[in-house]
Amino acid sequence: MVSATDTPVEGFWAVIPAGGAGTRLWPLSRAGEPKFLRDLTGSGSSMLQATVARLSPLAGDNVVVVTGTRHEKAVREQLPQLGEQGVLAEPAPRDSMAAIGWAAAVIEARDPEAVIGSFAADHVIGDEQVFRDRVREAVAVAREGYVVTLGIEPTFPSTGFGYIHTGEALGVEGAPHGRAVRSFVEKPDADTAARYLESGEYRWNAGMFVVKAKVLLDLLAQYHPQLAADLRSIAANPESLASTWEGLTKIAIDHAVAEPAAADGKVAVVLGDFPWDDVGDFGSLHGLLPAGEVASKSGQENGSDLRVLGDVDVIADNSGGLVASTTGRLVAVLGLDDVVVVDTPDALLVTTREHAQEVKNVVDRLKERGRTDLT
Amino acid sequence: MVSATDTPVEGFWAVIPAGGAGTRLWPLSRAGEPKFLRDLTGSGSSMLQATVARLSPLAGDNVVVVTGTRHEKAVREQLPQLGEQGVLAEPAPRDSMAAIGWAAAVIEARDPEAVIGSFAADHVIGDEQVFRDRVREAVAVAREGYVVTLGIEPTFPSTGFGYIHTGEALGVEGAPHGRAVRSFVEKPDADTAARYLESGEYRWNAGMFVVKAKVLLDLLAQYHPQLAADLRSIAANPESLASTWEGLTKIAIDHAVAEPAAADGKVAVVLGDFPWDDVGDFGSLHGLLPAGEVASKSGQENGSDLRVLGDVDVIADNSGGLVASTTGRLVAVLGLDDVVVVDTPDALLVTTREHAQEVKNVVDRLKERGRTDLT
Repeated sequence: MVSATDTPVEGFWAVIPAGGAGTRLWPLSRAGEPKFLRDLTGSGSSMLQATVARLSPLAGDNVVVVTGTRHEKAVREQLPQLGEQGVLAEPAPRDSMAAIGWAAAVIEARDPEAVIGSFAADHVIGDEQVFRDRVREAVAVAREGYVVTLGIEPTFPSTGFGYIHTGEALGVEGAPHGRAVRSFVEKPDADTAARYLESGEYRWNAGMFVVKAKVLLDLLAQYHPQLAADLRSIAANPESLASTWEGLTKIAIDHAVAEPAAADGKVAVVLGDFPWDDVGDFGSLHGLLPAGEVASKSGQENGSDLRVLGDVDVIADNSGGLVASTTGRLVAVLGLDDVVVVDTPDALLVTTREHAQEVKNVVDRLKERGRTDLT
Repeated sequence: MVSATDTPVEGFWAVIPAGGAGTRLWPLSRAGEPKFLRDLTGSGSSMLQATVARLSPLAGDNVVVVTGTRHEKAVREQLPQLGEQGVLAEPAPRDSMAAIGWAAAVIEARDPEAVIGSFAADHVIGDEQVFRDRVREAVAVAREGYVVTLGIEPTFPSTGFGYIHTGEALGVEGAPHGRAVRSFVEKPDADTAARYLESGEYRWNAGMFVVKAKVLLDLLAQYHPQLAADLRSIAANPESLASTWEGLTKIAIDHAVAEPAAADGKVAVVLGDFPWDDVGDFGSLHGLLPAGEVASKSGQENGSDLRVLGDVDVIADNSGGLVASTTGRLVAVLGLDDVVVVDTPDALLVTTREHAQEVKNVVDRLKERGRTDLT
């Protein structure tokens, strides 16, 4: 749905860090085939493609994807509309501050007034129109000099996300959902999460940042001067990338800038009341897949509500589960509720939604065994 | 272990009906790849080969395998030591009376005094020396004119097997474990099975019959004269097989001869106190596989007692389960006790030991869907 407001925002750039193996979605997602390159929801687009499509109405051609050299080719193939400058390939992973900061420095060099919005390549957003309206508000707030995050309305007391403690309304024109940020808080325990939910003052931190490129880099220069200088130096002299990148400080943007800036009163939040999911594990993926797929795909007659990803014939008598297949083999599941079956050509995972978080342990153990061919 | 008594028994013929798809072991066992052709216990031999090896010390070269034309080639390849006459290929399945009766008629024509022993091609027997000693006793009893069955000492109150109600000792020389049979009883309910076990008077009916070929066919002539005549006719004129076979009565040997003969006091039992398993489902298969395979095969460090069949790397944190693979893919199982994972190139089964009996329902549903390529 395109609204009347769906015109590009002057001077706005979308930055999309595309990294991370998604190890809790192993073996569907791997270092070599990360989830952002995959269509995990049966939408017909990879998560990266969907992310670009979601942002293009705001950013037009001003889209920069930051990824590893290992995935540069695949990213360019999936996004032929991005020009040579539209993909930045990191020689090695240096965490999110380097990735986003590099893009910010490149964009700052082209347009000192540019506002960037950084959005992960592997999240799912449900109501894109509302999302884009909130990003527009965030841009308005960012133009006032804030680091702006989008705070997702919690739908359950998650212990898997960090939270944003929101404050008073900002009163910025064009940003009715803008609020001050009191602080970022780490992943809480269950009781604390329940209190957060009940208070109504807390939002999930989805890692979305909207900020003037110059503001971001100037704040970084205040908190981590060498890193800011290195990133601006790489932007000014792209030939120095190879020699400079290796020595960059590895730090997340949250710790490098967002948290100290919040303490300095320089962070704002725009309240986001759109569905959001980081597709963090198979429990999350289960919730994103439509129910009733088994029936439609395989003529199943018994009313199992197993959810299915992939072109696969499934026989099942249980409920609450998930079958994901990239092999097309028939899958039969009997007597196991909430089961998760992930069938790929070289590795098979069988677990339950309850144990979905532990899947990353399998990847750790594969690495211990030297089975990096599978990770 | 070969004992002093391990010399062939004069006039004894081993008959091995090799049929049945083993649908409760799907997808490991299928109509096209039935369990008797497979090595289901990691022994290095197929179940059919193991059955012949178990009987050869008693029967020498007097071994006849009865199978379907579909499997004749595979059977001959697995058993090159059997001559042309050693494999009888049924044009179509006509149940166990026709299969065993045909072999009996062929053997009777060659040796009217022959004693045959019929043993399924897909059972596992633990103490082969004791087994053979009991078969020797059964041959001695059979020479007295009885239909002799081997009655397996129950190890638990199974509701999955028929039982033999044993009577007084027979007093046949050379057969100290011979008893009269009061009756055959159908698969009992759980309470009845518990009473059977407690009474000590009941044995599992493992479908093993030892009987003079002539006695078997004469009894069949009494209860089902046409079938007996047809089988003797086929033995006398092998050219008539194609035209006669189609019209044979489909009936199990238990109903055709064993039960009515028991009512007539013509059936005896030799008590068998050797481990026996019909490998009827994955619960049964689990019990036959050695524990600790995961540790030895994949260097697993966490003490899971998952049992493994096939050359497969397994990562698991659960207990009581079974992984069987013919693909060699890595299998990871998290948080599911007693799980059964069967991984084949075109079909994957995930269930639990508790639901092992329901696996045949999957095969039924595949047939309903026309997926006979997988059954």
